[in-house]
This record gives sequence, structure tokens and C-alpha cells, in this order.
Amino acid sequence: MTQVFDVERVLAQLTLEEKASLTSGSDFWHTQGVERAGVPAVMVTDGPHGLRKQAEDADHLGLGNSVPATCFPTAAALGSSWDVELVTRVGEALGRETRANDVAVLLGPGVNIKRTPLCGRNFEYVSEDPVVAGELGTAIVRGIQSQGVGTSLKHFAANNQESDRMRVSAEVDERTLREIYLPAFERVVTNAQPWTVMCAYNKVNGTYASENHWLLTEILRDEWAFEGLVVSDWGAVHDRVPALAAGLDLQMPAAGPRPDEEVVAAVRDGSLDEAVLDVAARRVLHLVARSLPGIEADDTFDVDAHHELAREAAAAGSVLLKNDGGLLPLTSAAGVAVIGEFARTPRYQGAGSSQVNPTRLDAPLDALRATGGAFPFAAGFTIAGGPSGDDSALLTEAVAVARDAQTVVVFLGLPGPDESEGYDRPRLGLPDNQVATLRAIAEVNPRVVVVLANGSAVSVTDWRDLAPAILETWLGGQAGGSAVADLLLGVRTPSGRLTETIPHRIEDTPAFGNFPGEAGVVRYGEGVLVGYRWYDTRAMDVAYPFGHGLSYTTFAYDGITASLDGTDVSVQVTVTNTGSVAGAEVVQVYVRDPEASVLRPTRELKAFAKVTLEPGESREVSFALGARDLSYWHPGLHRWVVEGGEFVIEVGASSRDIRGSVSLDVKGEPLWGELTVMSTIEEWFTHPVGGPLLQAALVPPADMGPLDETMQAMIMQMPAKVIAEFGLVGFDREALDTLVAKVAAG
Amino acid sequence: MTQVFDVERVLAQLTLEEKASLTSGSDFWHTQGVERAGVPAVMVTDGPHGLRKQAEDADHLGLGNSVPATCFPTAAALGSSWDVELVTRVGEALGRETRANDVAVLLGPGVNIKRTPLCGRNFEYVSEDPVVAGELGTAIVRGIQSQGVGTSLKHFAANNQESDRMRVSAEVDERTLREIYLPAFERVVTNAQPWTVMCAYNKVNGTYASENHWLLTEILRDEWAFEGLVVSDWGAVHDRVPALAAGLDLQMPAAGPRPDEEVVAAVRDGSLDEAVLDVAARRVLHLVARSLPGIEADDTFDVDAHHELAREAAAAGSVLLKNDGGLLPLTSAAGVAVIGEFARTPRYQGAGSSQVNPTRLDAPLDALRATGGAFPFAAGFTIAGGPSGDDSALLTEAVAVARDAQTVVVFLGLPGPDESEGYDRPRLGLPDNQVATLRAIAEVNPRVVVVLANGSAVSVTDWRDLAPAILETWLGGQAGGSAVADLLLGVRTPSGRLTETIPHRIEDTPAFGNFPGEAGVVRYGEGVLVGYRWYDTRAMDVAYPFGHGLSYTTFAYDGITASLDGTDVSVQVTVTNTGSVAGAEVVQVYVRDPEASVLRPTRELKAFAKVTLEPGESREVSFALGARDLSYWHPGLHRWVVEGGEFVIEVGASSRDIRGSVSLDVKGEPLWGELTVMSTIEEWFTHPVGGPLLQAALVPPADMGPLDETMQAMIMQMPAKVIAEFGLVGFDREALDTLVAKVAAG
Repeated sequence: MTQVFDVERVLAQLTLEEKASLTSGSDFWHTQGVERAGVPAVMVTDGPHGLRKQAEDADHLGLGNSVPATCFPTAAALGSSWDVELVTRVGEALGRETRANDVAVLLGPGVNIKRTPLCGRNFEYVSEDPVVAGELGTAIVRGIQSQGVGTSLKHFAANNQESDRMRVSAEVDERTLREIYLPAFERVVTNAQPWTVMCAYNKVNGTYASENHWLLTEILRDEWAFEGLVVSDWGAVHDRVPALAAGLDLQMPAAGPRPDEEVVAAVRDGSLDEAVLDVAARRVLHLVARSLPGIEADDTFDVDAHHELAREAAAAGSVLLKNDGGLLPLTSAAGVAVIGEFARTPRYQGAGSSQVNPTRLDAPLDALRATGGAFPFAAGFTIAGGPSGDDSALLTEAVAVARDAQTVVVFLGLPGPDESEGYDRPRLGLPDNQVATLRAIAEVNPRVVVVLANGSAVSVTDWRDLAPAILETWLGGQAGGSAVADLLLGVRTPSGRLTETIPHRIEDTPAFGNFPGEAGVVRYGEGVLVGYRWYDTRAMDVAYPFGHGLSYTTFAYDGITASLDGTDVSVQVTVTNTGSVAGAEVVQVYVRDPEASVLRPTRELKAFAKVTLEPGESREVSFALGARDLSYWHPGLHRWVVEGGEFVIEVGASSRDIRGSVSLDVKGEPLWGELTVMSTIEEWFTHPVGGPLLQAALVPPADMGPLDETMQAMIMQMPAKVIAEFGLVGFDREALDTLVAKVAAG
Repeated sequence: MTQVFDVERVLAQLTLEEKASLTSGSDFWHTQGVERAGVPAVMVTDGPHGLRKQAEDADHLGLGNSVPATCFPTAAALGSSWDVELVTRVGEALGRETRANDVAVLLGPGVNIKRTPLCGRNFEYVSEDPVVAGELGTAIVRGIQSQGVGTSLKHFAANNQESDRMRVSAEVDERTLREIYLPAFERVVTNAQPWTVMCAYNKVNGTYASENHWLLTEILRDEWAFEGLVVSDWGAVHDRVPALAAGLDLQMPAAGPRPDEEVVAAVRDGSLDEAVLDVAARRVLHLVARSLPGIEADDTFDVDAHHELAREAAAAGSVLLKNDGGLLPLTSAAGVAVIGEFARTPRYQGAGSSQVNPTRLDAPLDALRATGGAFPFAAGFTIAGGPSGDDSALLTEAVAVARDAQTVVVFLGLPGPDESEGYDRPRLGLPDNQVATLRAIAEVNPRVVVVLANGSAVSVTDWRDLAPAILETWLGGQAGGSAVADLLLGVRTPSGRLTETIPHRIEDTPAFGNFPGEAGVVRYGEGVLVGYRWYDTRAMDVAYPFGHGLSYTTFAYDGITASLDGTDVSVQVTVTNTGSVAGAEVVQVYVRDPEASVLRPTRELKAFAKVTLEPGESREVSFALGARDLSYWHPGLHRWVVEGGEFVIEVGASSRDIRGSVSLDVKGEPLWGELTVMSTIEEWFTHPVGGPLLQAALVPPADMGPLDETMQAMIMQMPAKVIAEFGLVGFDREALDTLVAKVAAG
């Protein structure tokens, strides 16, 4: 390996061809080096929840064997911890493993918004809410990059499905992009400056993300001041010349000689400014230079410690959905039966590029038995569903085991092939054979605990009444099995909260009917009403709301206050552990804007904090909100605005468990648009300058009586031009033009 | 009046200025005449359910006094009859009144789709379904025009709200326009050639309807072969030069000299082809010429006969929503109390340009008492809501009247100002004071009949359990009062059916969250899922489904068959009146397409027939469906396609009361798109030419084992170009280019 080099000195000595070559990879995983200039190739590898560094003998598609690495909980599980400190520590561990493997950049985290539970890649994403995704994405980037290696914030942007992902155009209006799909990226970029951002495969409003100047340059660079490098998703570049011009820096992987040649030709014929190429090449060199110290250092990582951290994180990210009668924790191992193939063959990660070769793997059954109990086991079903004959014997066996037990823990989940990068899930529910087993068990034993393993919400409505307790563990990584044992036995207390709503039915979900799109277009017809914003605004019943999660203890909220200083809001709440064991609560702050002139979601999360408390312990938690937290993106003015009026600050334990609220009267900014001939009479009348002018110009005909309510309402919505042309109230089109000019002059 | 003239001869002698003048009105209601050429001005007046010919002393805004004319049931009521023959007769009567008043064109019917129940002008529209709107729109146009006067099919197109109607851009994808918002217009134009089509105020996908070449020329003229004239909605033209170029012919009303001058200038400077102006002027002349015989004839109409027809139509359009225990018809007038101000002060039409000055007006209370009964009455509430003190006294009085009665008929409805052209409804529900009165009455008398008067769906969910019978009369026109008496007393049997779903809550409605739009844009985010297509596809509970309506008798469906000949479907069903009184059933034929590769609504109405049967009578009803009835608009191919596979023909009494279905295996057309480098591996493999070619070109590396399920699924969705550039399976980008060329060559 070479010493760190001077980027500008190197850049100055490169030929046009060499600079062009820098903007693509040399193979599947390496940047292009320039040997004569002392620029080495550096390696990047998949993440996001573990290092997937391909082994030398791996298959050519790049998804086969990789060197062992800790498989931490997937983003779905990690995010459910709502624990910034813990996620930072996981990031640090990921960074250590990346560095120990001489890798420059770990390709993660993914902060795309979960628009539908059917997105095959949801397990790699954090939340349906941009604040949760942005805060935890920031934490993981900070953790990883603290180790001197890079991250790749992905997939930028509006990559919310796998179906036709390499071609589909996400048709999203600007307000929805600004309020829902971009802010998690914005928060991570502005807070943590990831070394790289990965552009998505898809088009956004008709233009490939890889060629989208608005996204890659105007927003990412000009507005957010991103300083790193934009790398393509693997195979996302279709024409590197416009991609470079749009703000892409590095095409991955290598795509043959043609794209480099096209870049050279474009510079030569003047259609691409060489300065644009220089910028991209400089960023690649900078990435190489900043990664070399980590690559050259002789680091290792502590496999055991990382496994323990993975266990802690898996426990923290599991969500106790229900626990009727305090069935959990299990007070003793005696009489507890374990049913479900997943207890023996855990599902702990999803398929596709994120698939890690774990350093070890804890099965729940092994972990439970390691505590000393007998834990009789029956598989109960085959994961693949299998021929009914097979399942029927397994079911009979499981019922027998359940009948003899005091309590039954049933491990259910989605089959592996249901959740993968590259295609979407076929259905919201668990496989029928698993539900059949659960029903049969519940008939002989009412003390049923269901443990779920799945990467995004599954419907529970049809069967949840059969199980007094349900623990959602998501895809918990290699130590998920021991984590679930910890939780079941009360060694740890559940503290995860839902980062995505669990709906009753697929027909209830916001994107239903607009997913996965048709003929290369997916319309984001639900606009800003994504996740709980949809369910709350439409006042729909859900199975479990966003932010929900139980503990083995309980928490009281007292002294909720909110005060205003301009558009700064200071919120305080005192949280008390009112139960008998230690536990952690996730305090959530939502904002309502009931008086807006645009549709606003019923409530939006703006801040949260995870608070660990001993029994009886109290703590005051404070939150500081700013103008942005009160704003919406004005679709006409194309900027954030705080519209004056009532705002309600809500503090609660979920989007449907608000413990207290404070109403504030916020002084907003004036939102007058420019007055034109097409401004309505109402817009004229409410304008400080135009109103009096129009009033003075109006001369109703002498024979016109007072207008009734209906007529008045109708006229207020009419453009002044139409009224003027009707010629009925004393001013014509010329008079109106004069008024417009007067208003414009101030 | 002048004699009918030779259009071409006149046109040839007109000056440029005269031709320009013909393309705008001379005042609010008249076209421009050219006296020296013997071209008179002709008058057009508002409809659609009655003639609103402004009296000489009317106010200047044009919404005041008009000459008396029969106020027929509004489109909401008339449409609910589902009775083509009856609607044709109403059209004939409207035509007679138009002709008798020397008016050239009656400005209606309105066939815009009811996208939301809150649209203030829904009472002027027929249905949430394009087949119902198109069939009944055809009937009314045929009826009116049979009298030698013209109609104006309005408002073309996508004018589905009043909010900001003069500026808002309806953002609707092409498939949704083709399947939902355009077909009612298409059906009326192709079936009945209305003399005029009225362009809407709003923009469609960013372009004013008045300047929308795609709508006014490509679709209306080139595709549908419209032969008449396009007139603007009043004030909808903002720049007549591009409007003429787009296909508008006549700007109404007069808008001062400027637009004419601009047209002349544009022709002079070459920016507008004079031939375009000639086409518009010719159409205006043609309209004048074809209307002159009717104007010159000395006609009258039979006020009494038209009133009787209005009564028949109002009865036929009333929908019996529920009738528990057969509470209706009332077996005797004895002991029947009447409560509700609407019984004395009927709501029978909406506000705005459609407001007719009726020749007479039947109040329900008068009509009931005219049958000889006492019918004690209490107002029960003030329509305006009023101070609570007032209402409280009225309520007390009403409860006393109700307590003494055997049966109570309660007349409820929306206050007049809630439903008007020019602005939208504020809420879905009835006013609180009316519901309070109903509750109080129901507490003292369980035998409650509610009679509703409103122009579009109101929520009934909160109070419907209080009333065993509910009769929805919509806005039934001037004879609605006697019609309701006929229905209550069993003189007539209800036969109306819902042309719009009655939802439980506004939050359930398809446009919720996307209505009325923001910053000048309304996104039709629900796409084709409008009305019952939304509720059925999302499997939502509704209060009363589309197509629903009870009778005083019952009907059986037998012998449902459907047979296929190519893409022609022949459907038969035998309907029998199984009750003891004569009645009419509306037989509805729906099509399901469960195997489509695009999202299709769960079911779509394709045909219907109203059948009147004596007790015990049976009749076989036949329907002929064609390719179009099986098709969807392919958003990629931009044409109607019949995609092969299973189709289900459903015959029923409502969208949720399917009495029988037949499954057909339809041979569709091949839907191969053009194969390109961006076609997916799956698209290549399923292509008859490209599949074998690609298969032969694939050479997996020797060391690649079989791909697992996940990997296979992922690769099938990848574009061939990406696979080629990854360079893993024996062909590269150049080889792929060769394959594409081979496929293109056949």
C-alpha cells in the first residue's frame, strides 16, 4: 500500500483518460487505481448491518460466500431500539470490522422510508418516519466513521420498492419529497457528512437518480452542503456523461471500457466540461486518500464482544406488542415448550446484497436450553410450507407437545425467500401453515407466546387473539436467538418500539392501489400521508400503532409543558418508572398543526428520547424544537413555511397513546403570494395592499341588492380577471391591470 | 328573425373582424350576430334540469330572476332512476321548454364524475360511474335535441370540484382519464352528438381545458369525431388565440373588445392561421343556422304535463335505503305525523347557475295533506341551524307531536347554502341540530321514517339505527313534494338506485387527503379507484353501496348465463317480481378481471337495465358487452387492450349484492412491448423471439452452481443491460446490442 497522497498534486498530473477511469470501478468491489501516480484501488463492501466482503472463491454475481463478520440486527430491528447511543456503538463495531478487513467504505446505512410493508428491502431500512430514520441513520454513520472508514448513505432517493427498481419512475410531488422522502437523508448529511451517498436505481419524476441534477447537485450539494462522493448503486448508471454532469462521481461496478471512453470523447468534443470530470475525479481521489490510513493500519476486532453487542442490540430492538395478564417474562423454564422451526433454524437477516456470513449464530432454542431448562421442542411446520402431509405430522406432534406444557412459545415468521432485495413481498400475512399450527396449539393451550421473525410488518389481526403475548423480534442478527431468550426469561426487559405501523390488512395500507405501479411509473398518490400519517389522518383502526411497544414495567408521564420563543419550542416532561423492574421508555414528541391552509398529517413525530429508569426513578426529559419542526413545505412558494396559528405539542408513548398536549399560538410568516389578475377576490381582499385598492375600485351597480351567502361565497373564489371581464362591478380588465401594477409597485 | 342561411356563403363574405367577433358572445347569454350578413344572435341559457332564461330585470351577475320553467329533478335525482326511457322523456320536455322560449341551446347535461361527495356541484352530475353517467347523459341529450334545440355537454373535463375551479390543475394520469373521467363524455358524444360541448374552467395536467389541444382536438374531434361546437364555460377563456388553436370555438360570455382584437392581430401577424378561425366561425354559424327553425317556430309547452313528468321522475329517482319491517309504505294516513322544516320548505334544487324559477312548487306536507289525512306537523329545527334557543323550542314541540303519533316521517336534509356551484361542501354530515331532533323523536317513537333531501351523499352512519326506514330523495325538483307523498303512501313504488356510494365517514372517501388540492394543484392520487371501485377494491365497509336501492316488492335472479364469441360477451338473466306489488328492478352487469397485469378495480359496471314487472311476472334480460368492456387503457401502449385470461361476469342488484357470476376464459391480445437493452430478463424470456435468442446467448461460468429461488427472482427483474455490464453470464453489452437488433429485425 502506498502512503497517503496529495490529492491536488495527483490530480494535476493525471491524463484525461486516467481521470475518466477514476469515475468507474475496476471490478465489482474496487475503485480504479492509477499505479503510476501512486493511487491504489480501494475496496468497498456491502452493508448495512454487517460487512459482506466477498471471499476470493465467491460466485461471480457477488452474492455468495463472504468472509465471516458479525451480523448485527438488521435496520428494522436496530431502528426499533430508538436508541441513539446503542446504535452509535453498533456503528463503531461495524467500523472496526470494516477497518480490520482493510475496506474503505461500508455500503450503508439505508434510510429510505417504508412506504409499504411489502417492500422486499424494508428490513434494510429504519422507519416509515423520517425523523426516526434520520436520527438513527446519523448515529450509525457517526459510529462507523469514528473508526476512520466511510459509509454510503443509500439509496438516494425515493427507492421505496424493489419491483422494477432499476427502471421505475417514482412520481412524487415536491412537498412529499421534501417532507417524507428526503429529510432522513438531509438529517444524516447535515449532521454526520457520510463519506459517500449512493444514488438509487430508480427514476425520480422521470429522471434516473443517477442523472438527476436536482437531487445530486441542487439538493445534495447546494442545499445540504454534502462534501463527500456520490457513488452509484451497482448498475444504476446508464449514461455516465450526463450522470457526471448531474453530480454523480463514481460508477460502480466496472461496466466495461465503453463508459470511460464516452467520458473522454465528451470532454474532447466539448459536450462535457473537463472541470466537471475533475470534480468527480478529485472526490474519488479524496475518498481513496482518506481511507488509506484505515486500510493500512493493522487492526482486528473482538468477535466475542461484537457478538455480545449484537445480542444487546437485538434485545433492544425487539418490540413486545402485547402481554395480556403479564404472561411474559416467563417466571420459570419449567413447563415451557418451544414450537416452530424458526426456534431451531432462525431467520435473522434478509436476502440480497446485505447477506452477511456470520461469525456465529445463536438459535433461540439453543439459547433457551443453555439456561438449563428442558424446553421440549416441536418444529410445528416447515418454513417453506411444504407438502401438506409433512406439515400435518409436524402439527400433530406440536399439539402433543403443547398439550403437555404449561406455557408454549411459538416461533413464527416469514420464509426467507419472502424478503429479499430485488423483488417485493407477495403478501402481508404469515404463511397459512404457520397460522394453522398456531390455531391448533391455541386450542389445547391458551398460554401462548408468539415470537415473530420478519423484516417488515406482518398482519396479526386474524390470529392475535389466540396469543396473550406477542414479541416482534424482526430480523435480529446472529445473536437474535440469545436476545430473545434474554427477553422471554426476563434477563432483559423489552424496550423496542414500532418504527412502522402494523396495519390490519394490506388494503388498509397507504400505497395500496398505487404500488408497485404500472408501465414503469409508480404514483405516490398518498402524498405525505405515509405510515402513521395516513392511519391517523384517516382515523383508521390499526393492529398496533407507530411508536407502540410494551415493557415489563410501566411509565408515568407528568408535568408536560411546552413554551414558545418565536418559533423555538421547549418541551419538558417528567417520566417515572412506576413498575417493579428497570426498563426503558421511548418518549415521543409529536406536532399537530390544526389550522394550516394545506392538508397536514394529524400528527408528526419531531423528537424522541429513550430513557432508562430504575423502579421508582423519575427523570425530566427536555426537547428543543425549531421552526423547521413547525413548518411544511409550501408547494407554491417552494420553501419551508411556518404558517401562524394554533400548534399542539403532544407528548406520548405512541402515535395513539398521547399522554399530554400543550396548545401554542405561533406567530407565522405572511404567506401572501404575488397578486395577479388571476388572484381570487378573496386573495385580493386578504392582501394588505391589494385589499383596500380593490375595495375602492368596486362600484356595484345601483340596482344590485345585497348578495346572499351563496353568491358571496361563490364570488370570493372567482379570479378578479373573470369578475372584471363580466363587467358588472364597476371595473373592467384595464382597471384590474392598473390595480395589479399598483400592488406590484407596493 | 332571419331565415336559415347558407353557412358557407355567409362565411365567405365575412371580414376578419367579423369572423373574430363570432368566436365570442355579444353579452352574457347571446352569440354575436352579423347583421349585414343576416346572421342573428342566438341565446343560450343555463340548464341542466330546467331552463334558466334570465328575465329582463335580473341582476347583473346573471343568477337572479329568470322566467318560470319546470324545475325537473336535478341530475343526482334523475340519474338515480337508472331509467333511460324516462330520462329521454324528461329531455324531450326540457327541449320543448327551450324551444318555446326561443333559446338555441340548453347548457347541460353535466356528466362529470363524482370524485368526492363534497363537490358542491355534484347535484348537477349523474354518477360516480362513467357508464351510468354516459348512458343517462346520452338519453337526456337525445331527448332535448329531438326537439330541434341544442345541448351543451359539460364540463369537459376533470372538473370534479368547485374549490379553486377557475385555476386549479387536475393532475390525472392518462389511464385514469381514459377509464374514469372521459368515457361518459365519449359515450354521449359518440352516441348522441350534442350540439355543443362546454370546456371546463380548470386546467388538466397543467393546461387550461380551454387551451387544451389534446382534449379539445385530439380526443374530442380526432378520436370521438365530435361534430358540434366547443363553447367555453363562462369566463373559462384566458387567451382566446391559443384557445382557438387548441379547438375552442366560442368564448362566453362577452369579455370586452380585447380578445377579438387579439385574434385579429394574431391572424394578421401570422401567429394564428386564419383557417383555424374559419373553422371556429363556421361552427358558430352552423350552430346559429341549425337553431333558427326552433327559435322561429311558435311553440308552447304544457306546464301541467311537465309538472306531472317531473313528479314521475322525482319518484323514480328516489332511493329507498332501508325499510326494516316493511314500515313503508304507510298503510294509512291516520296517526302519521310529519316533522322537519323541509316538509314545509322543500329543498328541491341547488344553488348557482342551475337554479330554476319553477312554474309551481309542491311541498311534501301539502302533498300529503292533499290526500286527505291530517298529518300533524312540527318544524323540529331551523334549516339554517339558528340560535340554539329557537331550535330547542322547535324540538320540544316536535317531540310532543311525535309522541302522539303512530308513525313519524322526519324530513331532513342539507341547508341550501351547503350545496352550490362555486364552492364545495364543508362536511359530509347533516347539521347537528337536525340529528338532535331525530334523536329526540326516536326516543319517544321508534316508528321513524327519514326522508332525505340533499344533492350528494350525506353520512347516515351515526343515526341510521334510529330510523327503520330511510328514503333518499336527493334534490327532486319542483314536484318532489308530491313524488315523496306518492312513495310514502305506496301510490308509487320506489325504484331508484344509488349512483354514488354512501360512505360511513369523509375519511373513508377516495379523494380524502387529495382534495381540494394545494397551491393550484389537485392530485388524483386514487387513480382509477373512484367511488365503488375504491370501496370494493380496498374491501371497505360502506353505509350503502353503489347500485343499492329497495322496493316495496322483491326480485329473484335466475338463469344467469354468459357466453363468449371472441371478445363479445352475451349475458342473460331472468328477473322475477317475487312480491305482491308491481315494481322495477335495476339489473346491473359488472366485469371483474382478476388476472390483469395492472391494478384493476375489483369490479366495474358495464351495463344495466331497468325492468318493470307485475307481481309474479318474469322477464329475460339480455346484455351485449364488447371488447371495450373487457379492456383497460394500457399506460405504456397508450391504447385499450384486452389482456387474456379469466374474466368474471357478475350480475347483481348492487355492487355488493351480486346474484350470480360466470367465469370466462378470454383470449387476449399479445402485449409484448419492444425489447430493448433495458427490458428485464423476464421480459426477454417471455418474448417469443427474444426469449430463445437470449437463452442461446447465455453462457453461465463453469464454476457457477444452480441459482437459488431468491437469486433467480432477483435476476428476472433486472434489465438485460445491467446483467450484460456485470459481465458474468457470457454476454456483454455489445452482444446484447446485437440481440436487440436481431429481435427488432424479427
